[in-house]
Amino acid sequence: MAEVSLFIAASLDGFTADPEGGIGWLFTDEDYGYEAFFASVGALVMGRRTYEHVLGYGAWPYGATPTIVLTTKPSMSAAVPSVSFASGQPADILQTLDMPQGKKLWLAAGAQGASDFARAGLIDEVVLSIHPVLLGGGAPLFEGPRPRQDLDLVDSRSYESGLVQLTYRRKTGRI
Amino acid sequence: MAEVSLFIAASLDGFTADPEGGIGWLFTDEDYGYEAFFASVGALVMGRRTYEHVLGYGAWPYGATPTIVLTTKPSMSAAVPSVSFASGQPADILQTLDMPQGKKLWLAAGAQGASDFARAGLIDEVVLSIHPVLLGGGAPLFEGPRPRQDLDLVDSRSYESGLVQLTYRRKTGRI
Repeated sequence: MAEVSLFIAASLDGFTADPEGGIGWLFTDEDYGYEAFFASVGALVMGRRTYEHVLGYGAWPYGATPTIVLTTKPSMSAAVPSVSFASGQPADILQTLDMPQGKKLWLAAGAQGASDFARAGLIDEVVLSIHPVLLGGGAPLFEGPRPRQDLDLVDSRSYESGLVQLTYRRKTGRI
Repeated sequence: MAEVSLFIAASLDGFTADPEGGIGWLFTDEDYGYEAFFASVGALVMGRRTYEHVLGYGAWPYGATPTIVLTTKPSMSAAVPSVSFASGQPADILQTLDMPQGKKLWLAAGAQGASDFARAGLIDEVVLSIHPVLLGGGAPLFEGPRPRQDLDLVDSRSYESGLVQLTYRRKTGRI
């Protein structure tokens, strides 16, 4: 199965959107490794709210990269040819994907989507871009109980803006 | 008023204790800047649960440094001479403190304590030691709605163990 990477931005207090659902606090002054990451992505999974938010941008930013939108109404019709809808278990979704060898699945979902994949033990990598703000509330990165998952820190970089990007991978056994 | 520093350890998913209240996942193999930080501390504020946990260590680790324990039962009697109990507003607690000039108040409290100080706009510094683990649940760093607070990142260091320590200060105006 494809490797799953949760590549996401959050506030220091762990929110991916502010209490009004807004993301105006996200830094857009530079790339923060996005292009390099996206080059490694073979498919995306996102939640329905993220999908509708992204649709609002006008131009679809993910080109022809297959995108699966998690929804309880998978019969919706997609406004974008590369988008399909799915409900059900993360492992089943992952198995239906026809991914190019060596490419990652970008889990571009917080809250329920991220938590469902975490509960299924399917998160291989976490790339968290921590913004220098306490939002005080909003959409949480995870929600609901999940099993503990130990990680290895593989990269840490801080930017002039105050953004810190931490990269973790599923913990491997130590010798 | 004294500067307030929230110096605390958390998992990557923002918990300060695991679902059973345990902190066995905290790294104790090295100091992680603790001694240097504690040298800057003139007084501590902690929650009652933390206090009772620390009492369980046997020896009180904070010497004669005045420690205020937040509790709804401030009439409790303290087992440690440097400890007093308080309820009420963070600003009032802060004003009763007789702190040596230039020393910080260490806000050694997650959840309600940290959130009450955040709601009162009294957090000047955050030093967060992020451990490389998703605990999946437990005691949250903050709880309940708070106002947004923008921060400046002033230090970021990562350790061989995978711990990342981020230091933020209350955002100041830019020129």
